[in-house]
Amino acid sequence: MKAGAQVDSRRIYSGRVIDLDMDRVRFPDGSTGELEIVRHPGASAVLPFVGNPSSAGPEVMLIRQYRYAADRYLYEIPAGRLNAGESPEACARRELLEETGCSADKLSFLTSMFTTPGFTDERIHLFTASGLTQGMTQHEADEFIEVVSMPLSQALKMVELGEIPDAKTALTLLLAARLSSG
Amino acid sequence: MKAGAQVDSRRIYSGRVIDLDMDRVRFPDGSTGELEIVRHPGASAVLPFVGNPSSAGPEVMLIRQYRYAADRYLYEIPAGRLNAGESPEACARRELLEETGCSADKLSFLTSMFTTPGFTDERIHLFTASGLTQGMTQHEADEFIEVVSMPLSQALKMVELGEIPDAKTALTLLLAARLSSG
Repeated sequence: MKAGAQVDSRRIYSGRVIDLDMDRVRFPDGSTGELEIVRHPGASAVLPFVGNPSSAGPEVMLIRQYRYAADRYLYEIPAGRLNAGESPEACARRELLEETGCSADKLSFLTSMFTTPGFTDERIHLFTASGLTQGMTQHEADEFIEVVSMPLSQALKMVELGEIPDAKTALTLLLAARLSSG
Repeated sequence: MKAGAQVDSRRIYSGRVIDLDMDRVRFPDGSTGELEIVRHPGASAVLPFVGNPSSAGPEVMLIRQYRYAADRYLYEIPAGRLNAGESPEACARRELLEETGCSADKLSFLTSMFTTPGFTDERIHLFTASGLTQGMTQHEADEFIEVVSMPLSQALKMVELGEIPDAKTALTLLLAARLSSG
């Protein structure tokens, strides 16, 4: 038996970025309950390595942008929503280009994560990029972005100190560092 | 000047777990735009260490539960929403008790993270716990939870293999491992 069978689903709101559904669900014990679900198309995020990612002191590229929901500037890796029919890798390449102006020779898939499965189906697909070529930066209209390169070791130290409080960014830095160290 | 000044805010939906606002925002270049913001009270999550966390082969406790939004069972660390007026640490202790039946001698704060700042203000406060005492398990009505202990090294391998696709859990495991090895 399906562990949480949908009894019905009611769309409360259709938005630009998200939709909000109220679903009635039957649980394994036979009881039913209502759950609010934020429906999201999914996203990709990519950690760009400057130069050779396997070098002794690799550098990474982060962006710094104002996030209204967080009410602060955040260091993040380039990321954004999947367009309709777009593959996670194509989305990662597009966001990398839009937010940093860079193309990448090589994208490597790391993993896919549910960002916060208590209330949304959003999944984010995480990549690293290397072999960068700088072109023109193409910012989206509502993004105000500064590009910052730093040693991976410094970015990891910032995660430890709480200075990179964006979950996808911290997770990608930690996972890429772990995988590259062996 | 504030980088994203609120012009007005309209509540679209008030729910049990989340609220949804449509905010009109003035950006640094003077333009305005509308943003959908999922308002969330914040959450805590805690990685419980079984026995001594600094031992050579530490064990951790995970829970496995069905997540309707993800449409699958997920391995996670105990976690949940902050109650009104509740501190992050009190919330972490309460969720640990409710989901595993354990009390902890010691909670250590790791960091706080925005789960997905593109559309929500949700922040999650991450802890480790040690000195566990097993009591009775007290599940919430809509949670179907199995408690699983395993070596930290195994949990980290599962993160690398994509078998722990919950962002807070993967992040906490990676950060705790990094801090304990460093």
